[in-house]
Amino acid sequence: MQTSSRPIGVFDSGVGGLSVLAALHAQMPHEQFIYLGDTARLPYGTKSAQTVERYALQIADALVARGVKALVVACNTASATSLPAIRQRHAQLPLIGVVEPGAQAASAVSRSGRIAVIGTEATVSGGAYQRAIVARRADAIVTAVACQLLVALAEEGWTEGVVAREATLTYLSPLFHTPQASRPDTLVLGCTHFPMLRSVIGQAVGPQVEIVDSALTTAHATHQMLQREGLLSQQTDAAAPTLRLLATDSTARFAAIGSRFLGRAIAASDVELIDV
Amino acid sequence: MQTSSRPIGVFDSGVGGLSVLAALHAQMPHEQFIYLGDTARLPYGTKSAQTVERYALQIADALVARGVKALVVACNTASATSLPAIRQRHAQLPLIGVVEPGAQAASAVSRSGRIAVIGTEATVSGGAYQRAIVARRADAIVTAVACQLLVALAEEGWTEGVVAREATLTYLSPLFHTPQASRPDTLVLGCTHFPMLRSVIGQAVGPQVEIVDSALTTAHATHQMLQREGLLSQQTDAAAPTLRLLATDSTARFAAIGSRFLGRAIAASDVELIDV
Repeated sequence: MQTSSRPIGVFDSGVGGLSVLAALHAQMPHEQFIYLGDTARLPYGTKSAQTVERYALQIADALVARGVKALVVACNTASATSLPAIRQRHAQLPLIGVVEPGAQAASAVSRSGRIAVIGTEATVSGGAYQRAIVARRADAIVTAVACQLLVALAEEGWTEGVVAREATLTYLSPLFHTPQASRPDTLVLGCTHFPMLRSVIGQAVGPQVEIVDSALTTAHATHQMLQREGLLSQQTDAAAPTLRLLATDSTARFAAIGSRFLGRAIAASDVELIDV
Repeated sequence: MQTSSRPIGVFDSGVGGLSVLAALHAQMPHEQFIYLGDTARLPYGTKSAQTVERYALQIADALVARGVKALVVACNTASATSLPAIRQRHAQLPLIGVVEPGAQAASAVSRSGRIAVIGTEATVSGGAYQRAIVARRADAIVTAVACQLLVALAEEGWTEGVVAREATLTYLSPLFHTPQASRPDTLVLGCTHFPMLRSVIGQAVGPQVEIVDSALTTAHATHQMLQREGLLSQQTDAAAPTLRLLATDSTARFAAIGSRFLGRAIAASDVELIDV
């Protein structure tokens, strides 16, 4: 099989990365995708960098064994901790995470250089966004806050209403209800779950703050990477499924919650249970 | 070493079971305990019964290899799904979970037989509490609700305040703000995280509802089991540590969050990192 007609591998600890998959599919409708959610071991966001790296390498191996032509790490925590290890193991494989595209977009869009990042505990404490933004823009002042409860809210589907509003305010008020001069003008949604809460997050920070959703920026960056490598699919293989969904646990829960993130219905029978 | 002087094994997917460990230690101050939190794979509450059973067996094996004289499954999800498999593998080992003692206490305390249970998705969908209560009390009408967000609230330490109050009300109002005749008079905290939220839960259901905390009932039942088996420790071994804490990931996070559940300070250096 010609390399360019092989599928693109996408992975996340669970269903959050389906928001990235949806953006990738919208950007590149002629491509085929294999998505793997490591639902047996989710979440990654509260685990140590060493453990996340070990899991991410196993997932990368499983996707490479399925013949992917490129790999998108659609999980902020795994992107922040595990890209070097994956690159070392699979040196020839075009590889992209969600942190660099998000940092790129935030650096470009911020006027003041004051940028806030929200993510999981592991993403924030690892400092990958902070480093990636400052590397592009030395004048940036980056504040990062772990918003662990927002992950649970998105999974529970509580994306509107008083609990979502108050939880978002509790995390974000200390950052944004500050004097104008020190207030960030840009907020990076550094977790694939957070676009689900975009509306309450937008209300909490106000309309003057630019919100960077790394799903969209990653889809754009992936398209550029494939173009650069000459790996864009030349034509659609009508016989192959456009989206192939794999999970390491409970296909029923993957389908039920994943549908919200993908933005279209998933049946449990659409999801293949695999062991990695 | 005499059997009765060996430690009691206690395990949970993470730190929640430390509330059970605290109750066990208070009930039996002369015993030694080894606690294992499977933090590399937590939470169990959103995973399939098969996956939880596989993990629980590995954890039980690890504790048996460390010479425990009895095993307390201090995790509602693992208790609800995995006791038969553990019993089959380790037939000689005195074994207790948190579901049966909780069901026993609720059956005894309820006047009307209307009993509500809150737990994780896996605990509720498996129906173990429902079956255990009805087995003891055929007239019981059991309503079970999965309250996944309360787990995240307890871990985040948001146990008071508007977010905790509103989340608890969102889950419990449909059950308790109903006509008197159909209202439960007893609520089982069917997750080891929920005693942390006891105050807001009590406010949500009102003072006339009895709250059953399975940590306390499990400690009592464990004491009875050891007494029956002649396994109560005869004297304290001053040379051995009373509480030995093991985790499969990130000892720093275990210590930080676990301190709240155990009710006393834990340093990261008190926690041993192991692989199972």
